[in-house]
Amino acid sequence: MSVRAGIVVTGTEVLTGRVSDRNGPWLSEQLLALGADPIAIAVVGDRPQDILRALRFLASEGCSLIATSGGLGPTADDLTAAVVGEFQGREMVLDEPLQARIAVILAPLMSRWPDLDPEAILISNRKQAVIPAGAEILEPVGTAPGLVVTPLAGGGPTVVVLPGPPRELQPMWTAALRDSEQLRAALAGAAEYRRDMLRLYGIPESEIAATLRAAQDAGVELERLEITTCLRRGEVEVVTRYEPAAAPVYDAFAQLVRERHARTLFSDDGTTVDEQVFGLLRADGARPVQTIAAAESCTGGLLSARLTERPGSSDAVRGGLVVYSDEAKVKLAGVDPALIEHVGAVSEEVAAALADGARAALDADVGVGITGIAGPGGGTAEKPVGLVWLAVSHGDGRRLTRSVNLPGSRADIRDRSTTVALHLIRRLLLG
Amino acid sequence: MSVRAGIVVTGTEVLTGRVSDRNGPWLSEQLLALGADPIAIAVVGDRPQDILRALRFLASEGCSLIATSGGLGPTADDLTAAVVGEFQGREMVLDEPLQARIAVILAPLMSRWPDLDPEAILISNRKQAVIPAGAEILEPVGTAPGLVVTPLAGGGPTVVVLPGPPRELQPMWTAALRDSEQLRAALAGAAEYRRDMLRLYGIPESEIAATLRAAQDAGVELERLEITTCLRRGEVEVVTRYEPAAAPVYDAFAQLVRERHARTLFSDDGTTVDEQVFGLLRADGARPVQTIAAAESCTGGLLSARLTERPGSSDAVRGGLVVYSDEAKVKLAGVDPALIEHVGAVSEEVAAALADGARAALDADVGVGITGIAGPGGGTAEKPVGLVWLAVSHGDGRRLTRSVNLPGSRADIRDRSTTVALHLIRRLLLG
Repeated sequence: MSVRAGIVVTGTEVLTGRVSDRNGPWLSEQLLALGADPIAIAVVGDRPQDILRALRFLASEGCSLIATSGGLGPTADDLTAAVVGEFQGREMVLDEPLQARIAVILAPLMSRWPDLDPEAILISNRKQAVIPAGAEILEPVGTAPGLVVTPLAGGGPTVVVLPGPPRELQPMWTAALRDSEQLRAALAGAAEYRRDMLRLYGIPESEIAATLRAAQDAGVELERLEITTCLRRGEVEVVTRYEPAAAPVYDAFAQLVRERHARTLFSDDGTTVDEQVFGLLRADGARPVQTIAAAESCTGGLLSARLTERPGSSDAVRGGLVVYSDEAKVKLAGVDPALIEHVGAVSEEVAAALADGARAALDADVGVGITGIAGPGGGTAEKPVGLVWLAVSHGDGRRLTRSVNLPGSRADIRDRSTTVALHLIRRLLLG
Repeated sequence: MSVRAGIVVTGTEVLTGRVSDRNGPWLSEQLLALGADPIAIAVVGDRPQDILRALRFLASEGCSLIATSGGLGPTADDLTAAVVGEFQGREMVLDEPLQARIAVILAPLMSRWPDLDPEAILISNRKQAVIPAGAEILEPVGTAPGLVVTPLAGGGPTVVVLPGPPRELQPMWTAALRDSEQLRAALAGAAEYRRDMLRLYGIPESEIAATLRAAQDAGVELERLEITTCLRRGEVEVVTRYEPAAAPVYDAFAQLVRERHARTLFSDDGTTVDEQVFGLLRADGARPVQTIAAAESCTGGLLSARLTERPGSSDAVRGGLVVYSDEAKVKLAGVDPALIEHVGAVSEEVAAALADGARAALDADVGVGITGIAGPGGGTAEKPVGLVWLAVSHGDGRRLTRSVNLPGSRADIRDRSTTVALHLIRRLLLG
């Protein structure tokens, strides 16, 4: 039996693109992991009618659980609780104990913003204690409480109402799973699924389509696997969801991919290239941790930022250089100005000199150099927008260089360059 | 008269959060600008039934235009064209001239991937030339054509079918607006709206709620304005959409915000703090461009990356330093190791020394220093996770420092720190 679930993300700022939604995909992933079947994320503005229609759409599609995000704030356009109350046939009532608990939460906020009118804050937030009668309260993580609201008349979906900020929504969801019997009841009967991922780098998506046909021809029962492929930051991801009984089918499929794409398949265990690079830099029995430093021109610091995304990256990353101008390449990374004059800043030679310069400046074992034309201006027939030269060098004398011609916008080219760099680092470290 | 519009974003990778959707919000913004009324973005997986249901939901909500993104690729899970054909009551047919045009587009791809089986590519992509009979073709930007498909029987929404990659979708949409009479007909009668934005920094969102009540009390006809507020990267954005006749109402509201929030309102003309900082750095009659450089610890390069996001930023940004370790702070930014020893790396003094060090290392007019605890580990009672010290110094001797206690995850803290830095830079440059 499958438990269908839906997600309603509210907020005109999300609908109109000023804020990018992280909650819908996060909740969907959570529901998948619980064995539910997320069928849609509906993003709507702050208008009550649109929120109500989205709830009705998901209910009519047979969802037994709907999670909402957003619209629980203090302003008048925050209306989700009231709409869910209407949807479930429940009147809105002030919960006085909840109001008192919110007042306690607000006290430190008021001391942080001493200029504010405390009365105004209390009025704004009284609203947050008005909830559908009989709803289960999920205690606030910020100032907004969440709710679990079942239909008064029975027979419809349970609605879990969550706040918009991800740092409030995520712990509240986790707590609700633990504490709310109504939520657990709505999820009862969810099937068990497995989910596995293959990641490939350096091939077009159409090659996977050919492999899927080959698998079919070889008798692999693909209809027992739910396979999706997508391009993500320059890599091809193949995600497969299947019931435990179909594990041998998945194994046969994965084996075929391993055989056909041995050179481009870099991950079959869910690890990202970022994780693999850190795994390779890590100390092992034979040697201490290897350190890494980048000297970046067109990426302007994005690679260093990506290398320091994970906690604990300071073991391997001491720092880096952003060398946007030629003067900075010379002064910080020690690139010979005559070399830049001779071959141009976007060249294999300068990328290599940047890698060596980063290594020297930061006393690192591994150096990375990136120099390219991110556009939209600055391209020539010989060196068009999207041309990026990359180099990785190691203190032991090994070195790799490559160039790529990346498509897309300035932001795409800059982001994609960091993926190319990580794969080049990985190749060098694998030897 | 209002033209209701809806958006269907397809792709299991989007529904399950592996890829974050940029198309839904972008299309919504475009529709708004055209005077249409986007009511919902429905994100669904690659299952045909779910795509079909999302189309039916939006049609039942009175949309006269639906735009879809994704599902036009070469793999078998790319099914949008066929589902839209079914939805509109049109059979799928191979368009041979289109197939030939796609073959021409694929030729350079095949030379780029010389190892591939050309036959496999052609089979994969033949599929992309199978379209609903009578559909209008939008010429491929990548390899996938788009479509404009009206209901065979009349009386329903026009569906514009667009590819998933934003760099294909965006130019195709623009071309369709110019060339497709069917698309223009679906948008006929859209109202004209204005849209204005106020940006504030350094106040909680609840203050805006109080101001809205004050506006109401002062007789401003708020019901003629569609006002939404949201928190975005540490700023409060107030966006108002209104018909041209309500312009005096908006002006009265904006004036009230200016009066009540004079110190925190930093933009009433749509400019971002990033744009304002570059405007202040730019050369004017009195002096040449001012240059800027950052020395970043916890942000790991994110501020330099943000400063180099815009084309032409090389006028003001020569480069920067990523000084993640104490050694790097000493070696690259010239921070006195005794100072770090004495007050700790996360301190006002070290932030100031980093700002000065960045200025010196890059010969810049303005230096920025950022040092903080991004977490999740490394916090203490005295210096908790989220504590960030920032400093901005100018070659003329001016200096500003501040500390913040930022909430959220490691990624939130790092990102938010760059916003705090930009506001500090702005304050220094404004004098």
